[in-house]
Amino acid sequence: MTETTREIRLASRPEGAPVPENFELAEAPIPEPGEGEVLVRNSYLSVDPYMRGRMRDVKSYIPPFEVGEVLQGGAVGQVVASRNEAVAEGAWVQSLQGWREHYVSNGEGLLSVDPSVAPVSTALGVLGMPGLTAYAGLTEFGRPQEGETVFVSAAAGAVGSVVGQLARIRGARAVGSAGSREKVDFLTEELGFDAAFDYKTEDLPEALREHCPQGIDVYFDNVGGDHLDAALGRMNGFGRIPLCGMISLYNLEGPPPGPRNMAAMLVNRVTMRGFIVTDHYDLYPRFAEEVAGYVNSEQMKYRETVVDGIERMPAAFIGLLAGENIGKMLVRTGPDAP
Amino acid sequence: MTETTREIRLASRPEGAPVPENFELAEAPIPEPGEGEVLVRNSYLSVDPYMRGRMRDVKSYIPPFEVGEVLQGGAVGQVVASRNEAVAEGAWVQSLQGWREHYVSNGEGLLSVDPSVAPVSTALGVLGMPGLTAYAGLTEFGRPQEGETVFVSAAAGAVGSVVGQLARIRGARAVGSAGSREKVDFLTEELGFDAAFDYKTEDLPEALREHCPQGIDVYFDNVGGDHLDAALGRMNGFGRIPLCGMISLYNLEGPPPGPRNMAAMLVNRVTMRGFIVTDHYDLYPRFAEEVAGYVNSEQMKYRETVVDGIERMPAAFIGLLAGENIGKMLVRTGPDAP
Repeated sequence: MTETTREIRLASRPEGAPVPENFELAEAPIPEPGEGEVLVRNSYLSVDPYMRGRMRDVKSYIPPFEVGEVLQGGAVGQVVASRNEAVAEGAWVQSLQGWREHYVSNGEGLLSVDPSVAPVSTALGVLGMPGLTAYAGLTEFGRPQEGETVFVSAAAGAVGSVVGQLARIRGARAVGSAGSREKVDFLTEELGFDAAFDYKTEDLPEALREHCPQGIDVYFDNVGGDHLDAALGRMNGFGRIPLCGMISLYNLEGPPPGPRNMAAMLVNRVTMRGFIVTDHYDLYPRFAEEVAGYVNSEQMKYRETVVDGIERMPAAFIGLLAGENIGKMLVRTGPDAP
Repeated sequence: MTETTREIRLASRPEGAPVPENFELAEAPIPEPGEGEVLVRNSYLSVDPYMRGRMRDVKSYIPPFEVGEVLQGGAVGQVVASRNEAVAEGAWVQSLQGWREHYVSNGEGLLSVDPSVAPVSTALGVLGMPGLTAYAGLTEFGRPQEGETVFVSAAAGAVGSVVGQLARIRGARAVGSAGSREKVDFLTEELGFDAAFDYKTEDLPEALREHCPQGIDVYFDNVGGDHLDAALGRMNGFGRIPLCGMISLYNLEGPPPGPRNMAAMLVNRVTMRGFIVTDHYDLYPRFAEEVAGYVNSEQMKYRETVVDGIERMPAAFIGLLAGENIGKMLVRTGPDAP
């Protein structure tokens, strides 16, 4: 009897907010690794906002997902069978073969994960792509100086929580916005943000006046829309705005109203820069060493929102876009490293 | 009998587009220079878009004009009487004492103008603040590379016409937009732009597709609004947008709709930077030497729209905001250098 594995396919393209019917849970036999190949069982699947963009049929920096095909995304798993001398059975690896429980690989594109450094799940969060995103955007473009104010939106998310803590480590004041009282408390009480507020219950411009009394020197934008507009109105001279994501817009059909405050760019000589983490993998070694150090010394904290079972991946993704996570959103599909 | 001189005062703050009633032409006796002072007769008054901003009662990078007071702006004139050993009678000087025919100065803030280098009026245009604005924005932030496409709006204006010609000198392709057939012909036939179009009769996104077939690498923004939106949709990866002005918005009351295309900033990793020429006076010596060379060798051409008589200054300013000028808009109030 062949064992089966499960995977999630794109059943249809979402219009507006994704719904469960856009996804299909499918069963398939566990594939057999051929000569030179390995079989990997995923333990953690990454749930990321950028995946929403790939569900649209438009040209972007990565090609769109195809309807009927298995979705893709970051994943960490263990090699359970190897016919490739370079990859040992039992090894932990990171890949872009998420949204499925098992996969076969010839080893290309697999990154080794060392379970002795930190829990393997962190390779998808604080020590992985979201952490590097925060690091690249803040240190390369934001460049906060001691005493400056760094404001970050979606601050309780996988990227935002690293941004705020890194800003503090660099000697800046960290202010975050998030979408619930629980997240706000997490930011100030657990992560040590200097200030935080709930953008769903507070007026954005007013909250920024209150919590950024010296203005904003760096606005790390994860959400776009109203946040960007309000932050523009509070920028200090020569301020920097790394544009990392626009999660507030991802479920919209058609372009949204833009920031009305563009004149502030001029008056305050603001620099705004869109960036994508894949252009900055050269920073990875420096990032990994520095941030792993902060994590191990507990100078930097992280949280994960873990959902069990691949069948709950669509719900986890829908929930991520609705802001249901604190820290990195993950789906667990297999055992942890011992 | 004391001779009189004339000056323009701000009679009331414009609401929307300025009207003649916002200005008052006043007569006053020509002032007498005291010990250590000089009397200057202005020959050219500068007419600049940024002056509209100073007519609003809002905090900005320069303080607002006051109602009832003489307006200020760039001017070039000749010393007609001197009781200051450092400034000879007959010398040509540039000042911020525009909107008047005569003024007295202790010499502070006066810049010497050498009539042997170029016509003195150019100190307010191609070899002055507008030229330096183009130079700073293009060479410091735009940084066009050989073969890249530089798009500039308000291309037939004092700044835009230098931007496009400098871009070509740097080996880039220059494309400009302007508001009349006459201006478009001026750009392509006189200034050597590779392409130009009339934004009043053509659809902006369509015109950009046609005239920038390889996309836009540098968009030098003088106008904001629809132009910025359309250019964002056509930017190449790692494109640069120096934000120099937003003339399309200056007469609006309240913030206008913003660019809807902000997601393009992210997808194409675009950098947008607001700048103000007064932060870049350190570039002046390099600029003056380089651009005076281009002007004298006729590698760079310029045009001036000259209106005679200080009584026509309000009309010239209103006309500038309505796009009636080609090249630098000036008001002549005295004789030229011989």
